[in-house]
Parts: sequence; C-alpha cells; structure tokens
Amino acid sequence: MSRLALADLSAAVLDPRLGSMTFLNEITARYPGAISFGPGAPHDEAFEAVDPARLMAVFERHLAGRGLEPGQIRRRLLQYGPTRGLLGEMIAASLRTDEAITVDPDQVVVTVGAQEALVAVLRVLHDPARGDVVAVTDPGYAGAHGAARILGLEMVGVPDDGRGPHAAALRTVVTAAERIGRRVRSLVVAPDFANPTGAEMSLAARLELLAEAERLGVLLLEDTTYRFTAPPGAEIASLKALDRTQQVVQIGTFAKIGVPGARLGYVVADQSTDAGTALADHVTTVKGVLTVNTSPIAQAVIGGLLLEHGGSMRRLGDRRAGLYRRNLRVLLEALRRHLGDPHGEDVSWNEPAGGFFVRMSVNKPADEKLLRRSAEDFGVLWTPMRYFSLGDGGNRQLRLACSSLDPEQIDEGVSRLAKVVRD
Amino acid sequence: MSRLALADLSAAVLDPRLGSMTFLNEITARYPGAISFGPGAPHDEAFEAVDPARLMAVFERHLAGRGLEPGQIRRRLLQYGPTRGLLGEMIAASLRTDEAITVDPDQVVVTVGAQEALVAVLRVLHDPARGDVVAVTDPGYAGAHGAARILGLEMVGVPDDGRGPHAAALRTVVTAAERIGRRVRSLVVAPDFANPTGAEMSLAARLELLAEAERLGVLLLEDTTYRFTAPPGAEIASLKALDRTQQVVQIGTFAKIGVPGARLGYVVADQSTDAGTALADHVTTVKGVLTVNTSPIAQAVIGGLLLEHGGSMRRLGDRRAGLYRRNLRVLLEALRRHLGDPHGEDVSWNEPAGGFFVRMSVNKPADEKLLRRSAEDFGVLWTPMRYFSLGDGGNRQLRLACSSLDPEQIDEGVSRLAKVVRD
Repeated sequence: MSRLALADLSAAVLDPRLGSMTFLNEITARYPGAISFGPGAPHDEAFEAVDPARLMAVFERHLAGRGLEPGQIRRRLLQYGPTRGLLGEMIAASLRTDEAITVDPDQVVVTVGAQEALVAVLRVLHDPARGDVVAVTDPGYAGAHGAARILGLEMVGVPDDGRGPHAAALRTVVTAAERIGRRVRSLVVAPDFANPTGAEMSLAARLELLAEAERLGVLLLEDTTYRFTAPPGAEIASLKALDRTQQVVQIGTFAKIGVPGARLGYVVADQSTDAGTALADHVTTVKGVLTVNTSPIAQAVIGGLLLEHGGSMRRLGDRRAGLYRRNLRVLLEALRRHLGDPHGEDVSWNEPAGGFFVRMSVNKPADEKLLRRSAEDFGVLWTPMRYFSLGDGGNRQLRLACSSLDPEQIDEGVSRLAKVVRD
Repeated sequence: MSRLALADLSAAVLDPRLGSMTFLNEITARYPGAISFGPGAPHDEAFEAVDPARLMAVFERHLAGRGLEPGQIRRRLLQYGPTRGLLGEMIAASLRTDEAITVDPDQVVVTVGAQEALVAVLRVLHDPARGDVVAVTDPGYAGAHGAARILGLEMVGVPDDGRGPHAAALRTVVTAAERIGRRVRSLVVAPDFANPTGAEMSLAARLELLAEAERLGVLLLEDTTYRFTAPPGAEIASLKALDRTQQVVQIGTFAKIGVPGARLGYVVADQSTDAGTALADHVTTVKGVLTVNTSPIAQAVIGGLLLEHGGSMRRLGDRRAGLYRRNLRVLLEALRRHLGDPHGEDVSWNEPAGGFFVRMSVNKPADEKLLRRSAEDFGVLWTPMRYFSLGDGGNRQLRLACSSLDPEQIDEGVSRLAKVVRD
C-alpha cells in the first residue's frame, strides 16, 4: 500500500472533537504573543517548590522506615509494580482524614491521571453491544466525552445550566433512553466547579442527584479535580462522602494539587458485585491492559509530595488553592470593570466561588473563526464552548480559564476580550 | 443499589484471560519460596546503575545545552507536555543510526509503555462496527490479545509454529475472514524472539510476510521488545527496516532495555492517508484521550539513560543483553541436562538464540491445577501456554521465562521442573 484511506480508519477516531484536548494544550504555542484564557493548566508558580529528585528521596526514606532494604526500594521504583499502584494506603488515609470517606486501600486504583481512570471505569461499566450508554454533563469535560468516543459508547447529555446536572434532568434522560431500549449505566459529574462551566452543585442538589441515581440504578462517576479550590469553610461534602449506597465511584487527580508531569490520578471504587467480585479489581484489570501499571517513579514523586504535606491531599491542595482563588477574583473583577453587568443582554457570565473556569455568553458565534481573529487582531485566546458540547449547543458561549495566568495578564487579557466581544 | 450485577459489567471485561498479565505479575508473590519461570520481567541487576535522580539531571543538562532556561526546564518536566512526547527526536535519531530506519521525529509517538501503544494503534486502525478484525499470532502476546478485547475487536489467530507467523497462514486467515464479510486490517507480530514462543523469524520469512501483507492490504504492527537480545552479528533486519511501502508500524519499549518503572514505549508510524493526514497524528489523538500525555518525569529518566549511552537504544540494550543471553544459555543447558533430548516424545522444547522465553510441550495438561501442584509440591512456577492462546490451543504447553533469575536458580528450577514433568 502506498497510502491509507482516511475513511478506513476508525470512525470514532475521526470525530473532530476528539482532538480538542490536544488543541487546548497546543493552541497557545501557535500564538505566543496572545494572552491565553485557553488551557486549564496549573500555574507555573505551583511547581517552584517541587523537586522530583528530592521527593523521590522522601518516598524512599519512607519505604526504608517501613523496613525495606535498599535493593527492595530500588526494585519498588524501577521494576514492574502492582497494577493497582503503590499509593492506595496513602490515598485511602488522606480521604478518611480530609474528606470523611472510608475505603479500603485496595479499593483505590492508581491511574495515569484522571483520564485513564475515566477510560477504565467507563470500559468496565458499559457494554456498547448491549445498548449501554453513558450520561455526561453537556457541556462537560472534553476528556470524558473523548473517553466515551474511543470506547464506542453512545452518550446522552444532561444539561449543566450553571448549577450542575439536576436530578430531574437525569431522570428525563434515563427514561428517554429506556424508551428506545438503551440503558444509562452511569453519569460523569464534577460537582465542584466543573470544567468547563465552573458550576458548583449545592448540597441539596447533590443529595437529590444521589437519591435519584439510586432509584434509577445509575452509578455516579464523580470527578473531584477542582474541589481543592473551594473557599475555606464553604466546602460542600463530595458525592462520595454523602454516598450511603455505593452509588458513587470517585475519580481524582494530582495534576492540579500536585504536578501534571507525574500524570497521576486514582479511582475510588468500593462497589462489589453479586458474584462477590470487587469493582476495583475489574478496574485494575482494565487498567493493566491499558498501561500495565502506573510508573512507580511518578508515584514516588507524588508519594513524596504527599509525605511532605503530612499525607494529606487537602493540605497539598491548600498550598495552591490561594493562588487560583486570587486569579479567579482578579478575573471576575476585571470582567465587571471592562464589561459591566455579568447578567447583561449582549454579554453575560457566571461568577463561580472556585475552580479554574468562567462560562461566558456573547452575542455572536464563538467559533474558530472568531477565535482566530481574536488571537490575530486582539491578542487574546479562549476556548469555544462548542468543544465541550455534545451537539450543536454552546455556539455563542466560551470558556475562560484563569489558572495559569498572572493578575496583570488577566486584567490586560480581559480588556482585549472586551474589544472582541464588542467588536 | 446495594450491589452491582456481575452480568451487568462489560462482557469484554469479564473474559478470564484479560487478567492473565496481572496474574503473571502477581503469582510470584503468592509462592515466595518457589523458583518462578513465570514473569518475563527484567533482571534486577539491570537496574543497579540506574539512578532516576541522576538521569533526570542528565536530561536537564541536555535541555540547558539546547538553550532552555531553568524555569523552562522545570516546566518541561512538571507541566502538561505535548501528547506526542519529548523524545521523538532522540528515538528517531537512534533508529536511524542503530537500525537504518529513517523516520521524522513527529512520526514517533511516546506512549505509556508498548501496551498503550498497542491500544492506541489498534483503536485508530479498526472499527468494530464495520467488521474490522485484527490478526494476532496464536499463541501470542497476552497484552495484544487484551488490548483487542477491551476495544471490542474480534481477533483471528495466525499460528506461530516456532518460526513466527507465515505469509501463507496470514493469507489463509485474511481470505477466510473476507468470506464472512470481515476485513483484517492488521497483524500484530514480534519477529524477534516473540513472547511467549521465543520464535525468531528468518529474513526470508520477514520478506515474504511483508510482500504478502502488501498484497493483502494488511498493516504489520511490529513489536520489537526482545530484539536487543539477538546474538551479536546475528541480528536480522527488523520489518520496519525492510519496509519500502509503509506497511509496518513499529512499536517499541524501554521496559527491557531501560527500566520498566518508567513505563515508556513508542510508536513509529510514517504512514499518511489519502486525505493527507498522518497516522502518527491520529495515534497521538487517541493517546491523548487515553492518558493526555506520557509523564515527562518518566521521559526525562529515559532521556537521561539514552544520553548516557550516546543516544543509542542499541548501545543501551547491549549493556543488558549479555545477562539475558547467559540466562537463556543456562536454561537451555539445564533443560538438556535434566530432561535429555529437546525433541523427545514426552517432553520437548525449542532452543531460541535470544529473548526471554522457551516454549515447552509436555504429555499432560499444563493447566492451573498442575501449576498449583507444581508450586506447592515442587516449588517451581511457569506459565500455562493457554494464557497466550485464543482458543483451546496450547493446553499441553507452557512458557518458561528466564530473564529475572540467577543461573543457580535456573538450574535448580529446571531440576524441580523435571520432577513435575515426569511426575
């Protein structure tokens, strides 16, 4: 053969929205002069105290303290390791102390970021051949949509109106799916300052969603990525902490509270089956087929980081949360200063209490054409909400991410954005 | 819900053979006193000179030498990175020098081990909804079979009779599939000392397979994991080096020539489509949905290891190959000493020139029952060939791996194995 036919590749892979995460990571490089509200990446300042070599040494000392010989420690870091990972105990202990979530260490599966966790959990729970579909928030995290797409899973959208997915909306979607012989097995939901809308679910909404999910037999796949940015004292219990019926599988990541470069996430699954098998074991099996095991070198770096913060993910996150809350405050103030009323007719936006993101509505298509003009003529970047939508929704909306910028950049960026919006 | 129904999980995930890799990694722990010919893991000695912290520093100096500032270097290692990875240039340069393979750096995609590479490439090339099937060697690498299973891909087996898959056998399989409306898009093949059979394909067999694959329109997904163990001077050109028509996608790993703990592999894909898109870009997109990007910390460790070996994967592999060739020699000598003729009627085995594995046939079912008795009563472990077979084949065969053992263990292990075989 001289050439492959594009049409011969997997249809799932040719979906243009599949590349949106890559696009988000790479667009900034294409416009180096522009201020980018695009990527939801952590701020570089968050890495200043992170020295992987030192953190590995901390973790190695921890292993030595537990009686491992130098040769065993070397093997622990360099040899193949358990598919389930090395940090289950630490993560379970942190969840117990920080979040009042009680799970066994072997109900925790360490993964290559939250992304692999999503792929593995969706794969275990859904059989496309049987008509299983997955519910996702719409708009919602592009990585969840992408995971469903490459697994050949049909998605149904539960609207996020700015306060997360409602219990009633889930019921509507599940009922509609049942009418055409489909079964909704799970809903991917980020109750804390969701990407891309910034929505935070109230305690009441969480409890209603949990109760409805139980009635409907739908598992909730809770993504806690931005949870650590909640204002101190105003944290709302996570779905998993409220869960009394094993309705929730929790997915977490160290990308934002630690460093993205470790590519470390985890699944908390305390469910068991009627055959006595553990959901965590099934997730582990699939994780093993995806990547064998998570790099123990990367796990050692994160293990060291946890140890330096008393083993607490919350304490680790707290160290960084202030920076993100400051950025969000600066963004929201700048928007009011440059664009006036957040509930305006031509332009409006939400004002989340935490997270990395603000959702904005404008009075023109917020598409790639506008984005290109925005970058070239005005020197500012953002992400079309379209990238996070299942269908044709969100065409006049955009996502603003403020996590990786400095206050002056945010202010200048918003003044440029105001020109784009009013252009 | 109180419990999930096992039957409600994805059928693909419940396939008992899906867990065989996990089993291989964990069985040794269950019988600590037994000598294990089970896991094909690298020898611990291979890690003695490997210090991740030093190797990261080597890589960081390399980046500094290319003009990066300390802040940029820190971000390179800790921030999100390009989905394609950081080592494309180094890997392409090494393939050119070591293997006479000429590809562009952006035709190389760094992955979380060869395993993720397999999943991503299979996902891009096959659409199960369209009746695409994947050909695999039977018996063959359990990770390839597992990848096909979790992707919902049907497999057809091409027999490995000890000299790899024949061109004629591939043709038979492709023709049979076409008769029932299925299309074989690719064949996963390890020409150099395949796992689990130890088979090495001759140059003639490689050229025939390449020519036949071109005629049939089948891509060859070449796995080069054990290539580095070929006796010096007796290396046979890789399929990719012989490839003149972009028929071969090559998949490699640093797990055996470097360290498994980095979980680093790569795909070499120089194919383009009739629409002008690059196969490597499609693989990158899927890789991004699986794991976003490969840990740059892990990439820095392997980058440093490569730099310490003049940027040459071959030189890196050479450092370790002697140990594995010695182990294989010891294993083959011990087998002759304890069991006599390798072509015996009751027991027989092949005698590969390289690799980690020997295939043995015995005159009784080599199943889990025998394995348990072998561990408990005789103190020796091995892997049933059944784990690597698609159907019911290989029931009286087993795989012996010698890579992680010391010579005395190998000899003692074979003397125990002889008792199991003759029991």
